[in-house]
Amino acid sequence: MSKSFEPKYSDYAARVRESLRNQPFMASMLGATATRIEPGLVEISLPTTGDMLQPAGHVHGIVASAVGDSAAGYAAQTLLPDSFDVVTVEYKINYLAPGVGDTIVALGNVIRPGRTLSVCTADIYAEVENERTLFAHLATTMMIVRSG
Amino acid sequence: MSKSFEPKYSDYAARVRESLRNQPFMASMLGATATRIEPGLVEISLPTTGDMLQPAGHVHGIVASAVGDSAAGYAAQTLLPDSFDVVTVEYKINYLAPGVGDTIVALGNVIRPGRTLSVCTADIYAEVENERTLFAHLATTMMIVRSG
Amino acid sequence: MSKSFEPKYSDYAARVRESLRNQPFMASMLGATATRIEPGLVEISLPTTGDMLQPAGHVHGIVASAVGDSAAGYAAQTLLPDSFDVVTVEYKINYLAPGVGDTIVALGNVIRPGRTLSVCTADIYAEVENERTLFAHLATTMMIVRSG
Amino acid sequence: MSKSFEPKYSDYAARVRESLRNQPFMASMLGATATRIEPGLVEISLPTTGDMLQPAGHVHGIVASAVGDSAAGYAAQTLLPDSFDVVTVEYKINYLAPGVGDTIVALGNVIRPGRTLSVCTADIYAEVENERTLFAHLATTMMIVRSG
Repeated sequence: MSKSFEPKYSDYAARVRESLRNQPFMASMLGATATRIEPGLVEISLPTTGDMLQPAGHVHGIVASAVGDSAAGYAAQTLLPDSFDVVTVEYKINYLAPGVGDTIVALGNVIRPGRTLSVCTADIYAEVENERTLFAHLATTMMIVRSG
Repeated sequence: MSKSFEPKYSDYAARVRESLRNQPFMASMLGATATRIEPGLVEISLPTTGDMLQPAGHVHGIVASAVGDSAAGYAAQTLLPDSFDVVTVEYKINYLAPGVGDTIVALGNVIRPGRTLSVCTADIYAEVENERTLFAHLATTMMIVRSG
Repeated sequence: MSKSFEPKYSDYAARVRESLRNQPFMASMLGATATRIEPGLVEISLPTTGDMLQPAGHVHGIVASAVGDSAAGYAAQTLLPDSFDVVTVEYKINYLAPGVGDTIVALGNVIRPGRTLSVCTADIYAEVENERTLFAHLATTMMIVRSG
Repeated sequence: MSKSFEPKYSDYAARVRESLRNQPFMASMLGATATRIEPGLVEISLPTTGDMLQPAGHVHGIVASAVGDSAAGYAAQTLLPDSFDVVTVEYKINYLAPGVGDTIVALGNVIRPGRTLSVCTADIYAEVENERTLFAHLATTMMIVRSG
């Protein structure tokens, strides 16, 4: 998990930001932004809004899936050559605790980059005044495809 | 999958509808409604909107997770006594094809009801003019908890 | 699940049987055989032995994984041209009940055949005097590779 | 992942060893032993045998599942009071590379201990002359039950 990866495309960070901006579901509906981008590691954050809350006051679990899947996918994308992209083949998410926080943050890591498939994980945190509580864990397979 | 289940609470269908209305993430943001409610089986549908589309024109995969998780959880809930509810422990989703359609529909089934945990699956379809294409499969563990 | 698939290699059943015989882990250690082979559907069975039992008397869960993964993988293989094979990318298994029986049987189904990846499920049963109890459900991604 | 956990039963290591010896599937058939036992962390190792090899020469993937599930379950068990045990609710495994090695080693970690459920992961390595290659990642939910 602490391996260092060599990017194959120097502008990998700009590519992540642009791709995320072009996903209205993540960027507009959920308000997600990339808050950290390194080779093989991407952090996606979003501010919790009232619409995301369950009656009991914690964040709907699907919000954790959304940031986790996104962070993991972009982590894989940072290692790809130009003109390649990823699509999610599958993921599993385990919920560890109710998500209570102002901000939801997912830290995605590549654990195995590949030419056809990359395997990634994401840890998803709920943050209150910079205190992070791990509340979900996601593991996923991403398929590498030629861009658009 | 074609087993017949006996509900423990006669008003299970009203309970599903009310619970779904109280989830702003599903009901308001995504526009999801319950389109079929039977003991051990719930169908959740939503109309595709522009905000849900990826640049390539198909529905963001997380929308499939959202309706699938919801359909599976409510399927489990139909078999519970009054004053019990479910929370998602984990789910895995496999994406089978790009989701292209006016409507996204998830059919959730209980495959094993339990007192502590219930195991459910959901098949998620993209629908164009009443033609449904299976585009994702979800399997999940739900934990049974006292309401409120 | 009741779709009909067209095999691309007429001798798909013999290929499954031969491949299974060449897996000592499945064939010799666990005693698994293919008890039903159709396009997109394979059943793998094994007789329960004392070595497979947990102290409480039920079958070790990994035995269910082994037959389930195998049935799912061979189900995918039935639809491949000659000289192609599958490797497991990932699977998830949900245990539904303790497995108690003389025979463990997994019924594997292709839910989405593909050129690069196939998605399959398997239902795993414990059988006592021809009465089958579903005790585990598996969903998996298989990658298609050139043989040998 | 590097949290420190407080065991509730001082003899947790002996309990893991005894429990593993009483599982003939793991101990006798596969030859697995516990090679590291700490609160919330267990390592299970086994020597590769010819029966575990696939025709291509790498270890059958189910062997990775077996040691991974076992390491994760025992990691959860180290944190339980006396007279409690775990059963696997579900796990997902991602295969990262062919497993080639003399020894297969799984390092199981608790990421969320609970009273009803514990969530754990396991990293599974193939070892050749003390060089370890990560070849599978497993994430699992364990249910806590009163011992036999």
